[in-house]
Amino acid sequence: MNEFSIIDKYFNWNTDNSISVGIGDDCAVIDIDSDYQIVTSVDTLIEDVHFSSLDSPADIAYKSLSVNLSDIAAMGGIAKYFTLAISLPDINEKWLEGFANSLKIIANKYKIELVGGDTTKGQLSITINVTGVVERDKVLLRSNAKPGDLIFVSNTLGDAAYALKQKQNNQSAPSRCIDRLNKPEPRIELGRSLVGIANSCIDISDGLEQDLGHILDSSGVGAIIDIDSLPLSETLREYIDSTGDWCIALAGGDDYELCFSVDQSNKESLSLIQSQLNIELTQIGVVTQEVGLVINGFSGECSSYRHF
Amino acid sequence: MNEFSIIDKYFNWNTDNSISVGIGDDCAVIDIDSDYQIVTSVDTLIEDVHFSSLDSPADIAYKSLSVNLSDIAAMGGIAKYFTLAISLPDINEKWLEGFANSLKIIANKYKIELVGGDTTKGQLSITINVTGVVERDKVLLRSNAKPGDLIFVSNTLGDAAYALKQKQNNQSAPSRCIDRLNKPEPRIELGRSLVGIANSCIDISDGLEQDLGHILDSSGVGAIIDIDSLPLSETLREYIDSTGDWCIALAGGDDYELCFSVDQSNKESLSLIQSQLNIELTQIGVVTQEVGLVINGFSGECSSYRHF
Repeated sequence: MNEFSIIDKYFNWNTDNSISVGIGDDCAVIDIDSDYQIVTSVDTLIEDVHFSSLDSPADIAYKSLSVNLSDIAAMGGIAKYFTLAISLPDINEKWLEGFANSLKIIANKYKIELVGGDTTKGQLSITINVTGVVERDKVLLRSNAKPGDLIFVSNTLGDAAYALKQKQNNQSAPSRCIDRLNKPEPRIELGRSLVGIANSCIDISDGLEQDLGHILDSSGVGAIIDIDSLPLSETLREYIDSTGDWCIALAGGDDYELCFSVDQSNKESLSLIQSQLNIELTQIGVVTQEVGLVINGFSGECSSYRHF
Repeated sequence: MNEFSIIDKYFNWNTDNSISVGIGDDCAVIDIDSDYQIVTSVDTLIEDVHFSSLDSPADIAYKSLSVNLSDIAAMGGIAKYFTLAISLPDINEKWLEGFANSLKIIANKYKIELVGGDTTKGQLSITINVTGVVERDKVLLRSNAKPGDLIFVSNTLGDAAYALKQKQNNQSAPSRCIDRLNKPEPRIELGRSLVGIANSCIDISDGLEQDLGHILDSSGVGAIIDIDSLPLSETLREYIDSTGDWCIALAGGDDYELCFSVDQSNKESLSLIQSQLNIELTQIGVVTQEVGLVINGFSGECSSYRHF
């Protein structure tokens, strides 16, 4: 089985009309409506760094695409197309089938087309470059938070990090936490709803403290948040109550929730979004003129996730 | 030195006005003129597969971007932006500096902007996703070759494969051949000139025989080419005269020249392009209605490059 037959057999399922030419030429060809701007991002997931060799190919595929989609969500984008560069130590058809089927499921779920790729021989590694579109000049940036903005996060924090911690210690975790780790849900719908509402937005991949820090740095502002306001699942609340380990929620990583700031006048719009999308949106603090992040009720220091 | 400082120090040099937001947010934001379609492609280069650990970081960077630009060239595209996903076994600042400086040089030469990336820890591997634009419905496809079309290739074939062969045998090769291997020139200008002229086009990365085969398969046609008409450098002519090894030109790989077909009526336009761009364009055969590739004057069989 060579590169071309791998692609034909597993990765050739284009359907969207805006993809003029999909897999099979030197490049894919795509139409972009002129009322939109392109948003694009790339992420690599490597065995033993971002996932374990014991993880199922289905989970690896799901996570690889969803963490990229999360970047589109953070910009308020509509997912459009992606390319897949995959390195494999060898051709394992069962693995490939599990991977490709799962990739197709999440691609269909979020209406994004696979338009091209490259397969190479090497350490198992998956690089996805995802591209979306946002209405011109409406993109949600990190750099536009304003003093007085209310800071929100979606859903709960720390569940994925808790699942990972338990796994590393050979201990069990609730399936809800394991799903958060293996199959994070990119908040595409929420991002879309925040276009025109939020002043700034980021997806929380490396932990709230670090990622909110990126908003503050880019915007030249600061923030005060309350540790007690962080949205936690029952599991996490019990864990933190018994250990005092707030860092799992502040810096655990792998949340893939959105952290965003809105003008106070948009608080009601947010309530509406919350009920429409059936997603918890929790105010955790406010943006301040004075730079720096103050975390009321927390005096420790967390070591955030670093890529090296 | 963490991921963010690597990016800031080495990979943050955006300048193009059409890049609204470059490196530093969840996604880059790019404007696309509505008269154009997007063309996009991804290629991974891995240590010990596509390059040697002894190759200079400058050569690795040059080749990584140029092989991707070659795909844009094959579509007749204007290069626009790219993302870089790089895996590094460790942080070697001298290596990174050599890599980034060279990447910047070729990016500037071909007027393409680095808009985003990801750095991870792992086996040395470089994945570039390159995006360009082509006037709407003018893109050069593999699938549009017509019986009677004349088949051309640019420049000469086999020089890179010869350099690689010599290198693998610890023998010297002329610097011209070594440059063809390490610093292939993407034929962006030629591709642009062929828009409206060529019926089909591909870049020769895996060898003429295999890549012309892709044009023929996609177009549902065949071709007759003459082995004696293949454009060869002096070095290659001498090598083939003494060894009879035509496969180095037919299937050696790494040429990154364009192979394209034109209607006979466009022969004169090609002469003009040839003199304007100062590049040799050689007719090697014709497209036939009957499928299959006939190589007059050659009866052997070559093993083409396979990715696995």
